[in-house]
Parts: sequence; structure tokens; C-alpha cells
Amino acid sequence: MAYFDNAATSWPKPEEVYKTVENVMRNFGGNPGRSGHKKALEAARLIYEAREVIAEFLNAESPTNIVFTMNATDALNIAIKGVLRPGDHVITSSMEHNSVARPIYALTKCGVEWDIVKCASDGTLDPEDVLKAIKPNTRLIAMTHASNVTGTVMPVEEIGKIAREREIVFLVDAAQSIGVLDIDVKKLNIDLLAFPGHKGLYGPQGTGGLYVREGIKLTPLKQGGTGSFSEELMQPDILPDLLEAGTLNTPGIAGLAEGVRFLKKMGLSRIRTHEEMLARRFLEGLEKIEGITVYGCPKQRSEVAVISLNLKNLDSSELAFLLDSRYDIQVRPGLHCSPLAHKTIGTIERGTVRFSFSIFNTIEEVEKALSALEEISSEIG
Amino acid sequence: MAYFDNAATSWPKPEEVYKTVENVMRNFGGNPGRSGHKKALEAARLIYEAREVIAEFLNAESPTNIVFTMNATDALNIAIKGVLRPGDHVITSSMEHNSVARPIYALTKCGVEWDIVKCASDGTLDPEDVLKAIKPNTRLIAMTHASNVTGTVMPVEEIGKIAREREIVFLVDAAQSIGVLDIDVKKLNIDLLAFPGHKGLYGPQGTGGLYVREGIKLTPLKQGGTGSFSEELMQPDILPDLLEAGTLNTPGIAGLAEGVRFLKKMGLSRIRTHEEMLARRFLEGLEKIEGITVYGCPKQRSEVAVISLNLKNLDSSELAFLLDSRYDIQVRPGLHCSPLAHKTIGTIERGTVRFSFSIFNTIEEVEKALSALEEISSEIG
Repeated sequence: MAYFDNAATSWPKPEEVYKTVENVMRNFGGNPGRSGHKKALEAARLIYEAREVIAEFLNAESPTNIVFTMNATDALNIAIKGVLRPGDHVITSSMEHNSVARPIYALTKCGVEWDIVKCASDGTLDPEDVLKAIKPNTRLIAMTHASNVTGTVMPVEEIGKIAREREIVFLVDAAQSIGVLDIDVKKLNIDLLAFPGHKGLYGPQGTGGLYVREGIKLTPLKQGGTGSFSEELMQPDILPDLLEAGTLNTPGIAGLAEGVRFLKKMGLSRIRTHEEMLARRFLEGLEKIEGITVYGCPKQRSEVAVISLNLKNLDSSELAFLLDSRYDIQVRPGLHCSPLAHKTIGTIERGTVRFSFSIFNTIEEVEKALSALEEISSEIG
Repeated sequence: MAYFDNAATSWPKPEEVYKTVENVMRNFGGNPGRSGHKKALEAARLIYEAREVIAEFLNAESPTNIVFTMNATDALNIAIKGVLRPGDHVITSSMEHNSVARPIYALTKCGVEWDIVKCASDGTLDPEDVLKAIKPNTRLIAMTHASNVTGTVMPVEEIGKIAREREIVFLVDAAQSIGVLDIDVKKLNIDLLAFPGHKGLYGPQGTGGLYVREGIKLTPLKQGGTGSFSEELMQPDILPDLLEAGTLNTPGIAGLAEGVRFLKKMGLSRIRTHEEMLARRFLEGLEKIEGITVYGCPKQRSEVAVISLNLKNLDSSELAFLLDSRYDIQVRPGLHCSPLAHKTIGTIERGTVRFSFSIFNTIEEVEKALSALEEISSEIG
């Protein structure tokens, strides 16, 4: 088996993640932030420690600037709908995932204006084009950090600077970058960073988060019990309570914290080096296979180990099916929930087959994938 | 140790729940509904089976009428904001949790009208009062099934009938009733049922759901990737995709399904009988302790095993602290995120100490709690 679908959800996870989730369920079963007895306090401590480890990982001001969510999509909805009001203008790239595009599209039905800045056909974005799209009512620039289709990395630092100088809120979707690229929210001028827990951070599914810069005021998407200021019908106006209603996923979040500790112990550069090595070998091998088209920017193809390809005229679903059923190789075909990106790179009709690597993939698995592709290529002539 | 905070989150869980969560994380790591390879399909199958088991448990039309959420609060927000528009009128009881009250309060700032039907000081509600509160623009009646403060059970069947006859949407918050009371959504005329996974269903934290009756149209609160109709910028208009954006909590949901299977195996009536037995013994013992006040409706106090009390003039937090620190008994003091309920029963100033039982509590633990309360009562004179 070779699991190359880490951009959808990473698997396997580090052993400590499995163990922590189980241990927390069995032995730390209280409701964090409620009650006040020892089991509730233990749960609250686990959650706070998770905020701490993630805040440090992102160079956030404080653990309270980390809000836990169900997944990155939840975080993106909280961010986008927390900022935009009718009459506001929002700018995105043309490489966005539906988790950015669909919430914004829904808001355009309520008077929000949306401009999509066109990327080149390799997925790259010129920050000048973002600058040109800014209007007096631009309130938000929302952008993926790295494309989930081509792995293309966006110039977030430059765009962050452009946004900050104009007091435009800058939201980054770190779905494919967190746990791989260095993210220092201060250095990159990021106001809001939405991230999944279950991809590059190696946490369990059902986790994600939103970094909210101190001073950025969001209208909450959801209200409910917080275990704080319970006498008030208004959602408490402090972070993280303002954006966290209801019982958190304590075992999941404790597992996520273990995932981040694993990354810190390994060091992001080691992870990146390993994944880049796999990606480079894969790309090198692909060059020798007849009929392979690789999408995205050649210079960046190995930076975030997400590689989209097609083989001759084969349907992407058919190729993925052959790889899975005959070679036990798991990849993702189709549009990867990113129609805008596929329009940009010219693959909206057939989609692509995506290979995405993690620290747990091996060079042997990559060789196996290359042999499989070679065999399929020669078979279909 | 005696854990009596099951109304906040149940603990422990059945052994199968722990094992399933771990097994799914280790061995079924794909992203459900994405990709199409065997690991993704295995995950999708687990999710579908969870929908099936819950749909059957609630007598829902079909598994696709079950939407998975992060918790009951998430489900209530999706329901309330999916139904109400400016100019609409909503009716609730005066026993609601902040997970119902706070989202509605936020909507009153955008032109939604809210009437709170006053319950008696024992928490009971007269359906006639709900009928009287209906106006031509009443679009929603939202109500807890059982109070999380007093355990008082609301007349949902009668109110469901009133609502259905008038084509008013009826939303029930089953946070304290699911897994204890029989819930047949058809019999009770329920249109929307929000439920937590981590309380009476004995699933892990980070799970919850919303039953949506066939034909009830909700505007989605969140949009994003669904793995379906990916070429469309509009959220797919089919259930459950319309209301489920982003990666689901596969291990958590598989664990939740195990919790429901455990309930089915035990039978709800056995669970109810056990919890009622504990509650009756507790209430009987409390009568003999000087200075105890028990809140709620005497007739219903043991139906849902949630019992709120105060001891003499002791602050609720102080009593809970003594029980935890000296006797290793975990209860919840304060307002339990339900200020409306405390105003109704007259305890908004000091709150109450809440004991809530599960199938795993024992009669010995109840006796231990009674002895502890007796000792504290005699000490404070």
C-alpha cells in the first residue's frame, strides 16, 4: 500500500497522536471550561496547552488568539463571514478551494462584491495584480497559502504587506502549507489564518483552527454556551470564547497538540527536506514516462509536495482507480473541490490525479508509483 | 471518584467507543466522500453506517436526513439561522440553554422577533401558552426537550402538533434527552432535532448532529468543499451535503455510532430504569438532609436524571468545590449556561449544584454523595 492522499487527510498519524486521543477519552473525560471539578479542569488544561503549542508554532501573540474549530472550512466560514458585510469588497486568487470560494459566493447574493485575481496557468500569482484589484471598499483579501491542486505557493508575505499598509484584513487558508512551510503570522502580516488539524499537523479528523490577530474584530458565526459570562445573552466579547460555542473536541484537540509537538521535535525543515526529496524523485521519474503532463509551476513543484498530473487521454478517475485497484496506491482524482484552480490551469473538464506526500511516505513507495504509471502508460499505448 | 456531570459530557464511555475511535484512526484513515480509493471509501462507509444507525434510532425518513456537526450548539446554530429571516417571529420557552438563546438573541439585532413563553417556577410549560404566543409571522418554535438545569421535560408532542398544524417549523434541542427519552421524530412532529454526540449517546466529544425533516429547506450557515458537485460555486442543494462542509470527524462519528449501538443493545428503557432508580434514591435521601432545596417539577425530577439543588446558604461553587476536593465527587455548580432557566426557577443569583447521572453511575456512588451532603450540612450548622 502507498497512501498518497495526504492533501485530503494525512495518514498515518504519529503513534503519540493515537495514544493521546485514546488516553484523553479514557482518563480525562470532563467538559473543558465547564463545571470546575478536577476532570473539567484537566480537560481545560489540555485545551489550553494545545492553544499554547499552536500559538508558539505560528508565533501568535498569545494562546487565546487560537480558536478551535471542526475543520479548516469551519474556520474559513467564521473568518469570511465574521469580516464581510454588504457593500464590502473581497479579493481572492483564482486558485481557491471551494472552502473559500463557496462562502464568498454565498455572500455575493447579499451585497458583497468579489474580484478573483487571475493566476497564470501554472498557478502563480503576481502581487501587483492584487494591488491593482484593490478598491476603496476592499475589506478582505482571502487567499490560499499553497494550492491544493498544484502545490503552487502564493506570495503571501508580499500580499500581507500590501494588505496591512491599507488596513485590509488578510486571511490565509493554510490547508496545504501548515506543517510544511514556515508560518510566522507576524512576519507574513497575516490577520487571520485558517488551518486544518488533520493534514500537515498530523492531528485527528474533526480538528482545525483559526488564528485571529489581536485587534481584529469578528462578528461570531455561531453563538452558544461558553462556560463564561453565562448570565449574558450576548456572546462574550473575548477570545477565544467569542468564536467558540459549545463543547470542544477535547480528545481531538489533545491529539492535534501531539501532532504539533511531533512536528516541533522533527523540525519543519527536516519534514520539508524529506517531502521535497520524494517529490523531486517522483518528478524526475515522471519525465521519463510517456504521456505524463504535470501541472503547476516547475520551480515550486517540490516545495509543497502536492503534484497534479494526467496520463495521455486517460480520465483522471480511471487512472486513480487503476492505481488503487491494481497497485494499492491511493491518490485523488477529479477537481479536488477547487473548480477555480482547474479553470486556471485548464483542467476543468477532466480534473487531475493528485499525489500528495507526507513525512511517512518512503522512496520505495514513490518508485512503486512510478513503475505503476510506467506500466499503465505502456499498456494504453 | 463519583462522576455526576454527565449532563455536561458523559464519562466514562462504553469500551467499544474507545476502541472504535482508535481503530478508525489507525486503520481507516481516509477522507470520507473525497477521492474514491479504498481508504476514502472505507471512511465514507463508516460515516454512512453512522447515519443509518442514528436515523433508525430517531425514526428518521432516511440516513441522509442526519447531518453531522461539531456539537449540539453547532447544530442549533445551523438550524436557527437556516430558518429565520428578518421579520420572522420565533417562540422559545423560558428554560432554554444559551445554545438556543444566544443565537436567537443575535438574530434579534437583525430584525427577528423573539417571544419567550414563561414556564412555571418548577420549569414546566403549558402548551396553551405557546399557542397564545403564535403570531402570523411565527416561523419557528425552538425548545429544549428536557431542561439541563432541572431535568423538566417539555410537552414536545403537544407543541409539535400545534406547530405542524400551523406549518411552523419545530426545532427541538435534545441535549439532555437523547439517549434517555424515546425520540421518534415522526410521532413527536419534530422538523429539526439538534443533538450532542458526547452526552446521552456516549460518543466522543467533537460530535453532534442535526436531524432535518424531508422538505424542510435550510439556508446553509457554512459552505465549502463537499466532495460533490465540485464544479459548482453554490453549495449542493442535497442533504446532507448542503449542511456539511469540510472534512468530517470520521473517528469521532464512528465512535458515536458505537455509542448508539450500545444504547440499542442495552435498550433505552433499561437505561432509563437504572437512571431513574439512582435519581429516586438520591431524591429520597436528600429529603432527610437538613437545608437541601431541590428545584424543578417534583413529578418529573427522576425522568431525566438531572437534579439541581442548593444547600442552606452555601454558594453553589463552594459546595461543588467541597464535594470535589474532599469527597472526589464531580458535579457542576453555577448557571449551566442557562440564565433564562435560572431566572425562571429563581436561582439566577447563586446558581445551583447539578447532579446528572449516566448508565455507568452506581447506587454506591449515590450513597456516597448523600453521606457527603449530610456531613457538609451538619458542619455548616
